[in-house]
Amino acid sequence: MTTQIRLGVLGCGNVGAAFVRLVADQSESIESRTGLRLVVTQVAVRDVSADRDVDLPRGAFTADAQGVVTDPEVDLVVELIGGIDPARQLIDTALRNGKPVVTANKELLANVGTELFHTADEVGIDLLFEAAVAGGIPVIRALRESLRGEPVTRVMGIINGTTNFILTKMTEEGAEYEAALAEAQSLGFAESDPTADVEGYDAGAKAAIIATISFGAKVVAGDVYHEGITRISAADIAMARRLGYVVKLLGIAESDEAGGIAVRVHPALVPTHHPLASVRESYNAVFVEGTAVGSLMFYGRGAGGSPTASAVLGDVIDGAVNLVKGTHGSLGTFARATILPIEETFAEYLLSMDVADRPGVLHAVTGVFARNGVSIRAAEQEGNGPDARLVFITHVAQEKAVQATVRELRDLDVVLSVGDVLRVIGS
Amino acid sequence: MTTQIRLGVLGCGNVGAAFVRLVADQSESIESRTGLRLVVTQVAVRDVSADRDVDLPRGAFTADAQGVVTDPEVDLVVELIGGIDPARQLIDTALRNGKPVVTANKELLANVGTELFHTADEVGIDLLFEAAVAGGIPVIRALRESLRGEPVTRVMGIINGTTNFILTKMTEEGAEYEAALAEAQSLGFAESDPTADVEGYDAGAKAAIIATISFGAKVVAGDVYHEGITRISAADIAMARRLGYVVKLLGIAESDEAGGIAVRVHPALVPTHHPLASVRESYNAVFVEGTAVGSLMFYGRGAGGSPTASAVLGDVIDGAVNLVKGTHGSLGTFARATILPIEETFAEYLLSMDVADRPGVLHAVTGVFARNGVSIRAAEQEGNGPDARLVFITHVAQEKAVQATVRELRDLDVVLSVGDVLRVIGS
Repeated sequence: MTTQIRLGVLGCGNVGAAFVRLVADQSESIESRTGLRLVVTQVAVRDVSADRDVDLPRGAFTADAQGVVTDPEVDLVVELIGGIDPARQLIDTALRNGKPVVTANKELLANVGTELFHTADEVGIDLLFEAAVAGGIPVIRALRESLRGEPVTRVMGIINGTTNFILTKMTEEGAEYEAALAEAQSLGFAESDPTADVEGYDAGAKAAIIATISFGAKVVAGDVYHEGITRISAADIAMARRLGYVVKLLGIAESDEAGGIAVRVHPALVPTHHPLASVRESYNAVFVEGTAVGSLMFYGRGAGGSPTASAVLGDVIDGAVNLVKGTHGSLGTFARATILPIEETFAEYLLSMDVADRPGVLHAVTGVFARNGVSIRAAEQEGNGPDARLVFITHVAQEKAVQATVRELRDLDVVLSVGDVLRVIGS
Repeated sequence: MTTQIRLGVLGCGNVGAAFVRLVADQSESIESRTGLRLVVTQVAVRDVSADRDVDLPRGAFTADAQGVVTDPEVDLVVELIGGIDPARQLIDTALRNGKPVVTANKELLANVGTELFHTADEVGIDLLFEAAVAGGIPVIRALRESLRGEPVTRVMGIINGTTNFILTKMTEEGAEYEAALAEAQSLGFAESDPTADVEGYDAGAKAAIIATISFGAKVVAGDVYHEGITRISAADIAMARRLGYVVKLLGIAESDEAGGIAVRVHPALVPTHHPLASVRESYNAVFVEGTAVGSLMFYGRGAGGSPTASAVLGDVIDGAVNLVKGTHGSLGTFARATILPIEETFAEYLLSMDVADRPGVLHAVTGVFARNGVSIRAAEQEGNGPDARLVFITHVAQEKAVQATVRELRDLDVVLSVGDVLRVIGS
């Protein structure tokens, strides 16, 4: 016995078109496995007359998105238009009309996600969003379902493909940032205005969603501290490599024992043996640490029409199965979060500085660390004479103590300049 | 409103005890998230009087497993006794008594899994088994749910921690097999009789389950071709490294275009840049390839009481939520599979041979490849004179053609000996 599920799709860009094609390709196989026949019956687009590379009758296209989410002939809604408005109202309306919603909209969820989650649970209808974080990688389902009983302590992700591509080129080819960015742009991995990627805003939105789901807390994009990769140099990367690290842009969500949550995006030194270190090019990966399960990592394509469409389709099948059964996957409650400011967070740090090469320098410099309670794990000198450079890696220290250390070091006569502070993921 | 879910646990070994402790630790947090209060009320063990490191009243222990699975006071059953009998009858009985079952029993599922799946769907009750494959890594849920719409073509896994530990030691420390095995045994990573691990039987059972779930086909442990790691030498590993590969024991399940399924376990050369290459020590990882999603990898602890208990608990919450809702996750139908014999499968191969170092040798040897239709991708000579050794890597070729090539090479005057054939994972 086959049940037909009529899908209303909002948006038909790269992901939307890939989704429509994937449904057509896979509908027989899905039907034989689940008894559900998925059919895209309506697609809401801005320009109905535009040519699109999908095999649908002209009549399936409409400019009336509001009509799609209220149409009794639509069973399930797939939102792929992005942005906060009008996606927010359309999803709210669809849910209140009893239609499960699948969305890939990270901006929306990173800003008003818990409001929509609340609506979904209130009306008892599925809101699914695997594709909003890390594209084709099924990490949201793992966090929502597999790890529901796991005391998750920290999630760290390479969740922006553009910056990982750029850092990979800088690492493997010694390219400088500008050259690597230009290559990424020419290959279509970076936008002509790359700000959202390279300054960490895109990763920040995803980190907010990860924190929300991992810790059952209301975390929004504005809560996320971020530093981008624009100041990373080939020299930083070479130094990191000599010390046994690679540089990755990480989104990190962690919870301390008192329930405080820290969410941040910044470049970090990752030990070469760490699984995140081997994630190359535009691939994404999310590394989850839990008290019982230990370390987990989920790796795959974080973007692209086809991988994202695959994640959307997985959710659509889930929503359709639940709809037929009259059930839904509860999203649960989300507490108001105590967000720790960056000054309150802890990490290991790499500090490098150019110094005068004369007796007593190391003593003076280490005195600054000691006064600020920052303990040194490793120190080395590179070069001699006017090129003398000291590199320190600290034990776990609090950000504000490290910042105070840097300020004092800058005031020291023997310190000529202090390089960027880089956080280190402990091995 | 809290609903109490009474858990009956069968077995209280390493995983069972870790599970009981994890439930106690996490029950408050789970209750606040799901409204379900999980309580272990009965534990069936062989010896009721033995001391166990779990905080349960004496009266919770019973020797009567059959009583647990029929007791109306038990809502959900966790089967952790392993082996086929009596686990099979106990699970069947539990399901028929309306109790969701969570099991970590790979041997059972790799032999009579689809029979139990059929029973579970017939009675409409959950049978969940995340922990049966790759311990704490949520790959079964990903395959069953996230990738339901994905045309999965191949799954390759490092799904045995013992052999990965041994191969890591051989790779990173140049140890020979026997020394690395002894170290694994002394650290508790290998049994005193290591056969099931090092000959690939353990990985084979998991590969059968992966194939069953990935392709909706009846695949049992006996369908799996396997070669172990006992003949891998430090020299093989060093040669692989020179050519840009590491040696891993892989479980591979793949489907060809005609629907034939190949399932095998064998050592393979993995390019150093491949994500599987960076999976070290006793960690596991499962690499999934699909037409739409591209490449995915799931990484984590494949064994151990605590990670396995985490996976069991994730399933228990799922089963409890579904039980309360009166629903279950359908396992679907499993077709009789066409299992391809190893001779029919395709791979790239590495062949090495000691040869006489004189003119015409390469011509004679390559003639054997050509006559058998095996195309060469790379060739190199190592050493000279009496130590001359030729190493070939082929393009994708069929196993039977490669075996015929090896037989002919052994008959060739100029070939002194042919080394083990190693399969290569294409980059």
